[in-house]
Amino acid sequence: MEEENVVLRQLHERRSVRAFQERAVSQDVKDAVIGAAFEAPTAGDMMFYTIIDVTDQAVKEQLAVLCDHQPFVAKAPVVLVFVADCDRWYRTYQAAGLSVRQPGPGDLVLACADAVIAAQNTVVAAQSLGLGSCYIGDILENCDAVRQLLALPEFAMPAVLVVYGYPTQQQRDRPKPARFARGHIVHENAYRPMDSGELLGMYAERGDRETIEALCKRKYLSTFSLEMNRSVAEYLKNFSDR
Amino acid sequence: MEEENVVLRQLHERRSVRAFQERAVSQDVKDAVIGAAFEAPTAGDMMFYTIIDVTDQAVKEQLAVLCDHQPFVAKAPVVLVFVADCDRWYRTYQAAGLSVRQPGPGDLVLACADAVIAAQNTVVAAQSLGLGSCYIGDILENCDAVRQLLALPEFAMPAVLVVYGYPTQQQRDRPKPARFARGHIVHENAYRPMDSGELLGMYAERGDRETIEALCKRKYLSTFSLEMNRSVAEYLKNFSDR
Repeated sequence: MEEENVVLRQLHERRSVRAFQERAVSQDVKDAVIGAAFEAPTAGDMMFYTIIDVTDQAVKEQLAVLCDHQPFVAKAPVVLVFVADCDRWYRTYQAAGLSVRQPGPGDLVLACADAVIAAQNTVVAAQSLGLGSCYIGDILENCDAVRQLLALPEFAMPAVLVVYGYPTQQQRDRPKPARFARGHIVHENAYRPMDSGELLGMYAERGDRETIEALCKRKYLSTFSLEMNRSVAEYLKNFSDR
Repeated sequence: MEEENVVLRQLHERRSVRAFQERAVSQDVKDAVIGAAFEAPTAGDMMFYTIIDVTDQAVKEQLAVLCDHQPFVAKAPVVLVFVADCDRWYRTYQAAGLSVRQPGPGDLVLACADAVIAAQNTVVAAQSLGLGSCYIGDILENCDAVRQLLALPEFAMPAVLVVYGYPTQQQRDRPKPARFARGHIVHENAYRPMDSGELLGMYAERGDRETIEALCKRKYLSTFSLEMNRSVAEYLKNFSDR
């Protein structure tokens, strides 16, 4: 089906890019990328997000440090932070003279979805314009410093950061990583728990028990992962029922 | 830029569809839609989500009720629940004999982003195949009943539900709702707080103070919204540091 369908083909070809050419992204192209966010579905047409367009090199460099020390973030021509924003509507209701409850965790999760839907539209649009992109989930870490750097209000949390730029040839040539087999990920009508054999089998094409242990240390028991959990718990405090 | 770019044009043309033709979606088309999820970027190539493909009409009908009584959910030929799944990896680490911490709120938010990125790829793919789609954020509500219905494990939360089908002509003809002006949503380098005048001004093209009050009652002080916050707080309990 992909051969005749440009959209499916591009979704297939898209892979994350972490090294960019030193080629500027024109304002027209950047506008088209950001414009794609505005075309995305949004709950109740309310746009529960704010996009912070990071153009200041000093801010990019601080973000690169705060996002688990990934220098390529600072080298990206376009850096957008998609902020789950429950603050704007809270303040709008107040501006209209209404007495309202504070945003809760459901509002935050809904806003995160809104923000990420918009972000993925920009990623798809970028691909169609020849731009590579990469999500940086580490923007969830270091809430205090990130809040201060981006002047985030009380009821906002960065959902994802995305960087964009023209990929280097080396990045173009990298193969797309294989995904897990569909049967493990797509379940019918209800969640299907997998036993240890199937779980290890799912991973078997990537590695053995020792590979899983290394992955676990690198991704789950690591400093960045513990920090991400601490930091998100901090953001959530503002959204707990009070 | 849209004229020559099929992808941008389709992102622009896509709008939510809530009424479907009584026309089945072929397995090939459905496979292509689900396949687009697998093409989406995923943190560390780990796929922190499970997609529940709801084919059982009785389950669709229960979901329609649990998602704030929206009968069209049960009429959709394709219904997918994108579950933020921290359980699979937790069990995989355990299956490998590792002693690990329980998933925390940072893991959950990262998994939600992963799930929603995948979901939006399916929405984009669906559009390219002539299918309409609609996000149902209300899947966040009624955690107890939803957990039971979908047999969700301890460390999982449904992030979004998406329904797909061929749009009726009436749905095709509906105009896409206008978004807010870019200056309110896109800020440069830091979050820019808006004063009451700008907040009300942002909304002015849609309505006046009384429209905001009605919106607030319908979307924010409503039963479904309070339930969503209660329900998400419940899901979060399993992800709090223990």
